[in-house]
Amino acid sequence: MARADFHVYDTTMRDGAQQEGLNLSVQDKLTIAQHLDDLGVGYIEGGWPGSNPKDTEFFALAAKELDLEHATLAAFGATRRAGVAAADDPLVAALRDSGASVVTLVAKSHDKHVELALRTTLEENLAMVRDTVEHLRREGQRVFLDCEHFFNGFLDNKAYALEVVRTAIEAGAEVAVLCDTNGGMLPHWVGDIVAEVKETTGARLGIHAHNDTGCAVANSLAAVRAGATHLQGCINGYGERTGNADLITSVANLEFKLGMSVMPEGALRDATRIAHAISEITNYPPSARQPYTGVSAFAHKAGLHASAIRVDPDLYQHMDPALVGNDMRLLVSEMAGRATIELKGRELGFDLSGDAETLSRVTDRVKRMEQEGYTFEAADASFELLLMEEVEGGRPSYFDIESWRVIAESAGAGEALAEATVKLRAGGHRLAVIGEGNGPVNALDHALRQAIEQVYPDVARFHLTDFRVRILDQGHGTDAITRVLIDTTDGVATWVTVGVGANMVEASWKALVDAVTYGLRRHEVAPLR
Amino acid sequence: MARADFHVYDTTMRDGAQQEGLNLSVQDKLTIAQHLDDLGVGYIEGGWPGSNPKDTEFFALAAKELDLEHATLAAFGATRRAGVAAADDPLVAALRDSGASVVTLVAKSHDKHVELALRTTLEENLAMVRDTVEHLRREGQRVFLDCEHFFNGFLDNKAYALEVVRTAIEAGAEVAVLCDTNGGMLPHWVGDIVAEVKETTGARLGIHAHNDTGCAVANSLAAVRAGATHLQGCINGYGERTGNADLITSVANLEFKLGMSVMPEGALRDATRIAHAISEITNYPPSARQPYTGVSAFAHKAGLHASAIRVDPDLYQHMDPALVGNDMRLLVSEMAGRATIELKGRELGFDLSGDAETLSRVTDRVKRMEQEGYTFEAADASFELLLMEEVEGGRPSYFDIESWRVIAESAGAGEALAEATVKLRAGGHRLAVIGEGNGPVNALDHALRQAIEQVYPDVARFHLTDFRVRILDQGHGTDAITRVLIDTTDGVATWVTVGVGANMVEASWKALVDAVTYGLRRHEVAPLR
Repeated sequence: MARADFHVYDTTMRDGAQQEGLNLSVQDKLTIAQHLDDLGVGYIEGGWPGSNPKDTEFFALAAKELDLEHATLAAFGATRRAGVAAADDPLVAALRDSGASVVTLVAKSHDKHVELALRTTLEENLAMVRDTVEHLRREGQRVFLDCEHFFNGFLDNKAYALEVVRTAIEAGAEVAVLCDTNGGMLPHWVGDIVAEVKETTGARLGIHAHNDTGCAVANSLAAVRAGATHLQGCINGYGERTGNADLITSVANLEFKLGMSVMPEGALRDATRIAHAISEITNYPPSARQPYTGVSAFAHKAGLHASAIRVDPDLYQHMDPALVGNDMRLLVSEMAGRATIELKGRELGFDLSGDAETLSRVTDRVKRMEQEGYTFEAADASFELLLMEEVEGGRPSYFDIESWRVIAESAGAGEALAEATVKLRAGGHRLAVIGEGNGPVNALDHALRQAIEQVYPDVARFHLTDFRVRILDQGHGTDAITRVLIDTTDGVATWVTVGVGANMVEASWKALVDAVTYGLRRHEVAPLR
Repeated sequence: MARADFHVYDTTMRDGAQQEGLNLSVQDKLTIAQHLDDLGVGYIEGGWPGSNPKDTEFFALAAKELDLEHATLAAFGATRRAGVAAADDPLVAALRDSGASVVTLVAKSHDKHVELALRTTLEENLAMVRDTVEHLRREGQRVFLDCEHFFNGFLDNKAYALEVVRTAIEAGAEVAVLCDTNGGMLPHWVGDIVAEVKETTGARLGIHAHNDTGCAVANSLAAVRAGATHLQGCINGYGERTGNADLITSVANLEFKLGMSVMPEGALRDATRIAHAISEITNYPPSARQPYTGVSAFAHKAGLHASAIRVDPDLYQHMDPALVGNDMRLLVSEMAGRATIELKGRELGFDLSGDAETLSRVTDRVKRMEQEGYTFEAADASFELLLMEEVEGGRPSYFDIESWRVIAESAGAGEALAEATVKLRAGGHRLAVIGEGNGPVNALDHALRQAIEQVYPDVARFHLTDFRVRILDQGHGTDAITRVLIDTTDGVATWVTVGVGANMVEASWKALVDAVTYGLRRHEVAPLR
């Protein structure tokens, strides 16, 4: 099947955002959309314009700011209300005005839901589908129809469920997406029903599966094998209850197991990176066990396997992990650790291949630090400073910290203010500087940069652009370990540093010091030593 | 199918323990075995006696200490080494001496693995299977055979894979378990192959599936539908790489979706409790999205659904959650309409049905606060305080804050220490108290509770058990909004509160104040007003 004939449709930002604890800002959504486009999906459902101010704003900004190479943006919404003309329904107008060239309309296809939830007649529901599709088609938009609760509807009242599909297609909808909204289906049921609907209606069909039976991916595959040519899912399987079908797993199965070509050539080589980047944005830690993209997905623990893996890795893995941008890892073998470090070192300009002793010292230190909570996967700048320490005999030093202190306080119910004091020596001067901010890290950042700037003017060009906190080892209350990642830019490049500590202020301080040190080295400022 | 004719076989303690980061002590294993027996599984694979001292000790202690009602203990091990008589192989002897009435032997069934990993001949491998099975049968044990890499073997050399099955069964093995060891299979392949093996050999078959394609549960079901009558899996889907088939999900599908009876009547009503208890032992936090047993598995967020849930909960859930010991929950979120708020209010004991004005005021306020960064879907206690404010004319007040201040500081590269000062009025006293901690939030928590405890001794029983930070609107550096969720317990109940502010200290302070206020109200302490 050619790629153009198959829709890979992402609904992370709409149905995925129904997940408990998942909240996306407009800026989060713009960033996720860009990642999804890089991944090569065909359609990105951006939200429900008109239902809340954030989604309306997203579509307005997306039209101006997003530059999508592969993907088409889709706006989600409902069919018109009962008893109102489609043209007069403000929610339908919001879809029309969203600027999205595709509208995905959700419609009831289960008779009981029409009567009990929508509280209208079966005939009026069909009219709502017909009118809304026709109206949006006349306005120049492509329309996909999500048939909500389709499978339960089909089992309870087959004739009516089929009539909803026929009505939508006759009115101009391009595809009828059969939704297992409650998620209770099994693959053989999905396969049989999709085949029968296709046979009976001749409509182009899609599948939207939830994971309540642990079969979301298998249900999606069963639908595709039965003739569906439109597949919905979410990155990392986000979604309400047990989540939606994991889009990357589903697509990787189509590509690598069934030999279909539904994505741009080689695009899945970025899948692991993008799955993890999106989980940084949602702040929903990625599952190590996630198929294809999890950090453990190609990790081998059993010593039994280790020697055989060296003979032929394909004996013990179901595919080449590089195809999805992942890596094989041997959990008990030091060789594996060293190989990764050597590779990463080479990336950063350090040739460790000839120096087994240094390589093993660096590997040990990285392992020890990662056990303490550090992560170097994202924090290349901190890793490079670590390599300088171990390989070049020391990291560049531009200043000596004497002490730091930060005070945050509030009178009554008033807003909290923070003030930081940083004392350090640099370029023969002793500097004691205060910085203010709306929070302790903000105040420390100001104080540190104001002090160093007096000796190294380059620092004035650095500023912090992102700041991510993760509490590790949750369940230990405020005693838990905190990890902070900080992005700093000089307007040309951006670098990421990491700090770990017993609290956020301490962890942030370490990441701030690394950020300034790395920036000065990058600007080729001569260090003290 | 009658229960006795179907094996539900748990391998959490053997194959599940191959998961990255999962380590079980002997005591852990004894406790898990008891939970598995309570759950009603038929077979518990306890480990590999002879391969390590821990597993040998487990079987010795299990024979003395475990009192199993439903389950039979199985010992896992390999066929004899090449060129050695089964009776002379110490690892085979350890299986015989384990005291387990069932031995599950793993054998190579993929020709390439015999030659490249085992480095023996195809004939010798068959002899190893035959000899070991016959030996253990003569010693009075029942034998199951795990055919490692069966599916890949079948595709590469069908005749040999089938010969391994036939050899084992002829030697007296009760069941041949077809293992998708590398986890790359899809359900229709598994179904077809199991059917063919059954047809060709007439052997009793089992299935052992891994989740590398996200299809472990579906692959297990496909095997059972094709005639397998022995199902292996792990609690919570533990296992190497992406994990093994989740045993509870698989079994719940057989019972509730396919109408089979494979577990003791009603036993799955304990499934949620047991899945969570075992995750406490493994210290691997349970996934909220786990099918059937996850805390989110029956949680509903969408406002769209809430009004209909009021009419008929079965419209929006695929089964009654009580059947697996879980509960339906309604989440309050920015997408929530009035219906969700009304239902949630009812859950918390507030009847808002007759008061449209209050209902719409609360709904508006929730939406406004969620736009500021609050989230109430997890923070029931903060939501209840908000309802008291809006419905009862004010939230209970136990103290008046005059001011708070926290200092975090560090000399040189030393560890950071924090000290907090809290000044407040309560019960006619003015209290000024300091608290110390390893971080600012920790110090503030100590100071606040030490102050209030002087007037309200109940507070001494409260303590913080979890603490989650999320930086909202990332991309604004340290100016971003911070949201903190805090879990507090009094040893009986646990409640969750939320705070939002320009920095983590301010946000935490708000959540701490809510936590103490809610706890005092819960203890029915009379407020100031």
